[in-house]
Amino acid sequence: MSIQESHLPRQSPLHAVLAPDSVAVIGASNDPTKRGYKAMLGLVQGGYGGNVYPVNPKADSVLGVSAWPTLEALPQAPALALICTPAATVPGLLDECGRRGVKGAIILASGFGETGPRGAQLEAEMLQRAQVGGVRLIGPNTSGIFNLHHRLNLLALDHLKAGDIGVVSQSGNMLLSLALEAEHHGEVGFSTYVGPGNQSDLGFNDYLRYLGEDPHTRVATLYVEGFRDGRAFLQTAREVSAVKPVVVYKSGSTVQGQQSASSHTGALAGSYGMTVDLLRQAGVNVVQYSDDILPVAEGLGQRQQAPGKRVAVIADGGGQATIAADRLTEAGLLLATLADSTRERLAEVLFPQASTVNPVDVAGSSDAEPSLLATCMAIVADDPGVDSVLLVGMFGGYSQRFAESLTGDEMRGAEAMVELAGATAAPVVVYSLYAAVKPPALRRLRETGVPVHTSIENAVKVLVELSARGDYLAHAASADDQATPGKDRFENRTQPAAPGAEGQALIRHARQQGRDLLEPEAKALLAERGIGVLTERVVSSAEALSEAAGDLADTPVAMKVVSPDILHKSDAGGVALDVVGEAAMSAAYDDIMRSARRYDSNARIDGVLVTPMAPKGVEVIIGLMRDPTFGPVIMFGLGGVLVEVLEDVAFRAVPLSRHDAVTMIEQLKAAKVLDGVRGAAGVDKEALVSLLLEVSTLMEAYPDIAELDLNPVIAYPDGYAVVDARILLHRDSLDTDSFDNDSLHSDSEPEA
Amino acid sequence: MSIQESHLPRQSPLHAVLAPDSVAVIGASNDPTKRGYKAMLGLVQGGYGGNVYPVNPKADSVLGVSAWPTLEALPQAPALALICTPAATVPGLLDECGRRGVKGAIILASGFGETGPRGAQLEAEMLQRAQVGGVRLIGPNTSGIFNLHHRLNLLALDHLKAGDIGVVSQSGNMLLSLALEAEHHGEVGFSTYVGPGNQSDLGFNDYLRYLGEDPHTRVATLYVEGFRDGRAFLQTAREVSAVKPVVVYKSGSTVQGQQSASSHTGALAGSYGMTVDLLRQAGVNVVQYSDDILPVAEGLGQRQQAPGKRVAVIADGGGQATIAADRLTEAGLLLATLADSTRERLAEVLFPQASTVNPVDVAGSSDAEPSLLATCMAIVADDPGVDSVLLVGMFGGYSQRFAESLTGDEMRGAEAMVELAGATAAPVVVYSLYAAVKPPALRRLRETGVPVHTSIENAVKVLVELSARGDYLAHAASADDQATPGKDRFENRTQPAAPGAEGQALIRHARQQGRDLLEPEAKALLAERGIGVLTERVVSSAEALSEAAGDLADTPVAMKVVSPDILHKSDAGGVALDVVGEAAMSAAYDDIMRSARRYDSNARIDGVLVTPMAPKGVEVIIGLMRDPTFGPVIMFGLGGVLVEVLEDVAFRAVPLSRHDAVTMIEQLKAAKVLDGVRGAAGVDKEALVSLLLEVSTLMEAYPDIAELDLNPVIAYPDGYAVVDARILLHRDSLDTDSFDNDSLHSDSEPEA
Repeated sequence: MSIQESHLPRQSPLHAVLAPDSVAVIGASNDPTKRGYKAMLGLVQGGYGGNVYPVNPKADSVLGVSAWPTLEALPQAPALALICTPAATVPGLLDECGRRGVKGAIILASGFGETGPRGAQLEAEMLQRAQVGGVRLIGPNTSGIFNLHHRLNLLALDHLKAGDIGVVSQSGNMLLSLALEAEHHGEVGFSTYVGPGNQSDLGFNDYLRYLGEDPHTRVATLYVEGFRDGRAFLQTAREVSAVKPVVVYKSGSTVQGQQSASSHTGALAGSYGMTVDLLRQAGVNVVQYSDDILPVAEGLGQRQQAPGKRVAVIADGGGQATIAADRLTEAGLLLATLADSTRERLAEVLFPQASTVNPVDVAGSSDAEPSLLATCMAIVADDPGVDSVLLVGMFGGYSQRFAESLTGDEMRGAEAMVELAGATAAPVVVYSLYAAVKPPALRRLRETGVPVHTSIENAVKVLVELSARGDYLAHAASADDQATPGKDRFENRTQPAAPGAEGQALIRHARQQGRDLLEPEAKALLAERGIGVLTERVVSSAEALSEAAGDLADTPVAMKVVSPDILHKSDAGGVALDVVGEAAMSAAYDDIMRSARRYDSNARIDGVLVTPMAPKGVEVIIGLMRDPTFGPVIMFGLGGVLVEVLEDVAFRAVPLSRHDAVTMIEQLKAAKVLDGVRGAAGVDKEALVSLLLEVSTLMEAYPDIAELDLNPVIAYPDGYAVVDARILLHRDSLDTDSFDNDSLHSDSEPEA
Repeated sequence: MSIQESHLPRQSPLHAVLAPDSVAVIGASNDPTKRGYKAMLGLVQGGYGGNVYPVNPKADSVLGVSAWPTLEALPQAPALALICTPAATVPGLLDECGRRGVKGAIILASGFGETGPRGAQLEAEMLQRAQVGGVRLIGPNTSGIFNLHHRLNLLALDHLKAGDIGVVSQSGNMLLSLALEAEHHGEVGFSTYVGPGNQSDLGFNDYLRYLGEDPHTRVATLYVEGFRDGRAFLQTAREVSAVKPVVVYKSGSTVQGQQSASSHTGALAGSYGMTVDLLRQAGVNVVQYSDDILPVAEGLGQRQQAPGKRVAVIADGGGQATIAADRLTEAGLLLATLADSTRERLAEVLFPQASTVNPVDVAGSSDAEPSLLATCMAIVADDPGVDSVLLVGMFGGYSQRFAESLTGDEMRGAEAMVELAGATAAPVVVYSLYAAVKPPALRRLRETGVPVHTSIENAVKVLVELSARGDYLAHAASADDQATPGKDRFENRTQPAAPGAEGQALIRHARQQGRDLLEPEAKALLAERGIGVLTERVVSSAEALSEAAGDLADTPVAMKVVSPDILHKSDAGGVALDVVGEAAMSAAYDDIMRSARRYDSNARIDGVLVTPMAPKGVEVIIGLMRDPTFGPVIMFGLGGVLVEVLEDVAFRAVPLSRHDAVTMIEQLKAAKVLDGVRGAAGVDKEALVSLLLEVSTLMEAYPDIAELDLNPVIAYPDGYAVVDARILLHRDSLDTDSFDNDSLHSDSEPEA
């Protein structure tokens, strides 16, 4: 994985479609209220250089361009067709496109899958016709596209400036919002925009790959309601994020939002928390608020990354220094500790009442000489303990607020900041009270690629994402370096996991019986792979029990019925905990067998599982599942009721790298518990990392596994113990006649 | 408490100072770089109607106004003196002010308490001189004041519009930021601004009371780094928030931010979470981000409150409908469920593809008739299940994006919205993509008091605060109604709590011995007040132990050493848990006595406390402390290690109302645990409310109590049990010679 290249090698078939040499507008119109007029207006006014073919059987010309009655009649095959006519006409038109050799078609109409079963049927038919004819589809239910470096503006949006931000947005209003914000900003421009609509054929992953390959795009920005193929998207995101930033806003952070999104584009929404985790794992910069999309895209496009989290703040007032310190800290960034020599250099140029502790407050020193702020920024940027520099306050507005004569000095300050930004690895980010006023010094900064923000909150979010991207690239690069023989196999994700003989036999046996794995079988499968499960045995006679009791001496044990017919062991009275000594074990054994038979007199009972009670430690849970959108996913969380209530869990797509495993432990809000609180010793995180890595290979090793839960695992200062394990098999790998539906929902017993 | 009055009766002495009939500017100057020039410029250009007296011994006139050599020489006593000279000159000038009868002085200079001990000494001297002369002080280290309805603009800020937002800001840059934002907005104006600076004399509570009494101010907006007298502020906030909204941004949400704030104004920062809770308890609308200050102030100033949390969203695009649904839900608001009749009325006016489920998406229906959005808003506002209405999308921009001919219809839509806003109790809030463009329809909305926001996030925050204020006023009003004899005494906070005879005796005894209360004493004090503590006894002989064992039969018990000399019982080996039966109890007793004597051979040992082990339940903690800023405060949280890590606790100032007690339980992030999760029964919240109310009276009843901890309390489906209790007494109420420092830091034993 290299980060030297600024774009991926050209492979996408979309270049001919999104940067076409000719465009047909089907349903072109002279009626200004029609979409077929707007599109023609955009092409004509925008100065598109390719051939434009309005198709309208009733018009001789549209906006002065000769019109054609049909596609058939055109003098050449257009690369792209924009279809502005209603849904019902689309399948027939796509037949024509196919016959004529059109490479791609944009379907503006709604009335497809998002409206219900009848629309879905029409959408399926449309897709089938397009595939027969070899036409790639954008939409339906899309706002269209633009490609400003090709002067192709099918939306006829005014005032768009060509730039380096590529946008894919499932909401037309969101694109409009970004465009208006960019216009207001003055210096932000766009490369290509695509509205993916229902993603009937082409989806987010196709468009993202195109933006990854497009030399005009420095940052790909996506507003996503839902992915059609999440796993393919993650793969594309990994490739693209290695060469340029990918910024995603994912809507549907709540159930209410998901319902709204679903009624909008018919998209299936997965768990928001899981989606965010998986996107970040793939190197995506996920922003939480729609207000952050453009500032973060601008900031990442300009500076790509920060080498670390340590931010130096230069302020010309205590209030904003404090706000910056609060926001930076809340966001997980660090206030850099300035070296003594740095503080001395600052003290030399500042008034005595200035604070040279970060956040640096110049306290009036710059009132008569605003360029002093640039001097301070250069001093802190020179400190090896500083990864990025944030200026907050009124820079650019000194000439407005104090005296117009300060304009020259402010311009000198801006030039010095531009020079600094070019010379240092530390990104330089500016917040100014006067950003919206756009005084000359701030215009100069923006023109030369130093971001100037209208809000401290936005500026901090840019710093957060710069440092997140820097961290991602550093680990992606180091994983790359280590992909050599002899290195930890989990750094190199290419080796497939091999199944074990016992595990395969256990799964085969269970499949034959049309059931999932029993708890002891699941634990045996895990144990074969070196995963630490509690020693246990299944006893089915008084003699065996007596022998077990002798071996276990006075150790408290858990006893659980083992039966393929009893899924809810507690409900069946099939569980006894904290049993000590032979007499008590014998009584518990009899109890369990009696209760189980009373619960289901026909149940096959294999015996009773006897396990030592796990000593106290920190409860964690690990799960493995196949997400319908993203495929195999591993989950980690702390156990216990509070975490369940607070939903403090982490997700990663499988396969897992060591860095993935480490960060999924670190990201928990309650991660401190693992480090030991209230005098408790910290747990063995390295053992948990190894456990996560090993568990992550199980679906690959045993493709029959549909779902796995280790709940709880008890973590100790030295190692861990898997206390309960559940492994479910795919329905289609079972004899479904004898398959018990309930097993998909069986609860694990509370224990330990 | 009445909410009919729009301002408090006039009592503050500040009217003469903040709306003065004459102003002296000490240090007035003709040098444009000087503060004494700016202030004169503001007075002269602003058209201030009172008498202006520049004081400068070296000038005949300043900006054309006759200058005076000294205060002494003035023809009248100025109400207000603005002192622009350096710190060292201030005490002498205040002597003159006092002699001359000046009512208030503004001290701009820094160099006082915020700089260290020498500055603090100068500040104390200054304050003393002012008090002798009867001069009230604003500052020092302040940016000054303005009062736009009196055309008094001592900051010489340009483009300020007179309006109804009063501002008190400890940061001059924050005021500047709000002023620039208001200018950019176009329709937001200010009444009075004060920079409180170091609050040497006058503080936030004085200024807030003034704004509460000021008829020109409809909303008081405060940027606070630290309170000088938090308890007084809370009292004032309660009074003011009953008649108009109080919006506070409190800086220092992190330790890093607090350190920065402290170096800025020398303010003492308390726990941020506690401060926010106490402010909200007093009816304050606390905003979390500086970007939210002005939008929330504007929104609250215009509409004051929403009757509830149920929001109806009207959108002209699915994307922003979804974003609105996400943000509203995340913020704790509810998407109103529209009545069938409402949905039918919407369906009658909208295209078939529109979604009439909230968030309503008109899906193109308004493209040719934007005023249809106003029709939809009126339909949903008419639904009794709707408390507020949010419009999101491109309203105002149809004429920009589609056709200029739509301007007329957009203006009709705006008029209809204005009419709706005046006619309905449901606040109407608008977000438009075009807000920053300010098209005529949006200008019309803003002029007539319908807030138009540039961000969905801001619009949602306004709705959150409108509903929070509505909720507060409803409960403040209902508490008022119930302040009648025979009602629950906790609704009526006027009755003082009386001490119990046993509690008084226990405290007197402990004071005589120069120590805090022992655990059994603390529990006895609680039990006397009807608080449920576990039955317990202190045994000090083999016979007593045997008797206890007989009574307790096979109940597992906890045993703990009781000694005024042993504070860390666990460290001394003085604790045994889960002891069952006489033999085990006897062995544990001997162990504890032996260990305790080994730990400290001189320790006085009163015996061993024997308590039944509490059955399992939900652990909670309750604390009572005296905060240095806010006075007596009660704390509630869930027990256990995760909550400690996640800091999920709630605070309220004492005295406590029933509503306070209820909401402090409800506000916990993990509150669901109390409702029962994983099949567990919910706990008896009413019992916890009663416990909180009773505990909240203890400091009033026993003024010797410095701190109290009930940790843990176990909550059950029917009641609760206090398992461990600790009560610390004030140092000055103890014989300090024999007082053990450690007792202030003694840990309670983990238990149960």
